[in-house]
Amino acid sequence: MSAIHQIQIDRFGTAETLGLSQTAAPSGIKHDEVQIAVNFSGINFADIQMRLGFYPDAPKKPFVPGYEVSGIVKKIGPNVTHVNVGDPVVAGTYFGGYASQVTVPGHQVFPLPQSMSLAEGAALPVNFFTAHLALFEMARIRTGDRVLIEGATGGVGTLAVQMAKAVGAEVTGLTSSRGKLPYIEALGATAFMREEFEGNPKLTGYDFILNSTGGPSIKAQRQRLAITGRMVCMGLSSGVKDGRRNFFRMGLAAMRTARIGVFGLMDSNSGIFGLNALHVLEDEEWVTRLTQSLDRVEELNLRPHVDTVFPADKVSDAHRHLETKAARGKVLLAWQ
Amino acid sequence: MSAIHQIQIDRFGTAETLGLSQTAAPSGIKHDEVQIAVNFSGINFADIQMRLGFYPDAPKKPFVPGYEVSGIVKKIGPNVTHVNVGDPVVAGTYFGGYASQVTVPGHQVFPLPQSMSLAEGAALPVNFFTAHLALFEMARIRTGDRVLIEGATGGVGTLAVQMAKAVGAEVTGLTSSRGKLPYIEALGATAFMREEFEGNPKLTGYDFILNSTGGPSIKAQRQRLAITGRMVCMGLSSGVKDGRRNFFRMGLAAMRTARIGVFGLMDSNSGIFGLNALHVLEDEEWVTRLTQSLDRVEELNLRPHVDTVFPADKVSDAHRHLETKAARGKVLLAWQ
Repeated sequence: MSAIHQIQIDRFGTAETLGLSQTAAPSGIKHDEVQIAVNFSGINFADIQMRLGFYPDAPKKPFVPGYEVSGIVKKIGPNVTHVNVGDPVVAGTYFGGYASQVTVPGHQVFPLPQSMSLAEGAALPVNFFTAHLALFEMARIRTGDRVLIEGATGGVGTLAVQMAKAVGAEVTGLTSSRGKLPYIEALGATAFMREEFEGNPKLTGYDFILNSTGGPSIKAQRQRLAITGRMVCMGLSSGVKDGRRNFFRMGLAAMRTARIGVFGLMDSNSGIFGLNALHVLEDEEWVTRLTQSLDRVEELNLRPHVDTVFPADKVSDAHRHLETKAARGKVLLAWQ
Repeated sequence: MSAIHQIQIDRFGTAETLGLSQTAAPSGIKHDEVQIAVNFSGINFADIQMRLGFYPDAPKKPFVPGYEVSGIVKKIGPNVTHVNVGDPVVAGTYFGGYASQVTVPGHQVFPLPQSMSLAEGAALPVNFFTAHLALFEMARIRTGDRVLIEGATGGVGTLAVQMAKAVGAEVTGLTSSRGKLPYIEALGATAFMREEFEGNPKLTGYDFILNSTGGPSIKAQRQRLAITGRMVCMGLSSGVKDGRRNFFRMGLAAMRTARIGVFGLMDSNSGIFGLNALHVLEDEEWVTRLTQSLDRVEELNLRPHVDTVFPADKVSDAHRHLETKAARGKVLLAWQ
């Protein structure tokens, strides 16, 4: 059996520290496992934070990062029944996804939705799980809700807009770039520049706000919630701005992330959730549940947006592209 | 037209400051109004806080407190079509309910559910609106949810248990009195003494917790939330314990009500809401919406629990009964 190509984090540092290496393929497969020849690996902000050395839940170095892949099933354990050899699939990997071949428990593997290419499939798991957790598990949005998606052009935001539209919500999306307004409108949402929104207090009364920048934006956006409205705060992308001074920015964002008084919540009759989707993926029961929720992808008419596909040996370029925030949608590594 | 009997708050003080007085009945009725001969007026904790002088949203003295009544329609304005003269009704009054006759906008009036007595009807609006806001508007509970109702024997708690059962949730109720355990079990819920629950960390993983005591209980109960779970904190009944030293207790409860960090919410992947239902009732659109939601009372199989009915001239006894926490369920004043 041939060697596996992979990308390890050996030491913390800039994107240039990353490169291809080889490792021996495992000889066997467990009863409930699926072996996948990987076509595409998805890149997440958490991977960049890990590479920089400030992702608390990362494994010990050296380790292979990567939360999600798409590819073709090469081998299945005798207990696996929901996919077959030769099937195109998507899978969550929870580390280890930056590799030309992965072997994962069957409950982390799902058939590629028929409407999707393998590239789109690799862009799906983490963003879909995050949006699903925020909109359907935490906020529990429903028909007629007025929904505000802050980062509407990002990987999660794009799916969040599509999901909210699919359940019959009235959706508004924000962007910091005028050129991206038509992208949001094409998703069926009302689009505003961030500053335009912030300057117009009449844009208020949202039943659900998906906050993605944290910091002072939380307090400001809470003013825009309707009675009984809820905000879900996810991630902390304001911590990584240009690949530099990240510790400083992280600390600053942390300090600025307001603490919320329960009396304030009572006064405004609203709620706030915190979401760390990758943390949820440490729970096997939730991984199973979220993987199964991928069967709603077609019903919800979701189409993840792939920004750029880099050959796996250009991983440094791929990381740099994502961390400079040039990307609109998912950045992928291609293996085949 | 005969005089109306009413109970005013003329000065702040103990329950003994309250007594009957008379006022002239209004001569006319507006196009959208309904005049009701009141059978029963509901008493709420907020009325006691108003009498003591520490309810911020109370009108200027002298004023007639009271949020809810049941009775028979005496007169309707020409635009009113949903109730007729002679109909038994329930109505939200948002002050003014402690009176033998009230005249209110039609959108605050709803036909008495057929399954209910007039006494039960007067016990319904505030508790139902509060539970409805907490469970269906904020938390948006659904089938299969694991639900914890902290004050399961109170007016809101009783309805909350019934509502959660009606949507197919798995319900646990707490009480501080061993004698009330069978009451909770009779509602179809699992019942625990508060201390027993607090001492057993295995009782965890709740998708929804209805917190009613505030203070340190918020932090403790947040540990029991499931991933993506939510808590709704309502009221502040720990501020009124025995009708005395209330300012002190209110301040103490306020200090003890932890501020919640957004990072903490992300770590636990959970959410928290604050609910001040009486504040919501200042919004006309929500009053209309909540009044209409009373049409779910029969579908949800709700039965408000009336603790004691006092003749209206015994209002001092009624207030004392509620503020000493002797009551299990609603305390009412009877006018006819």
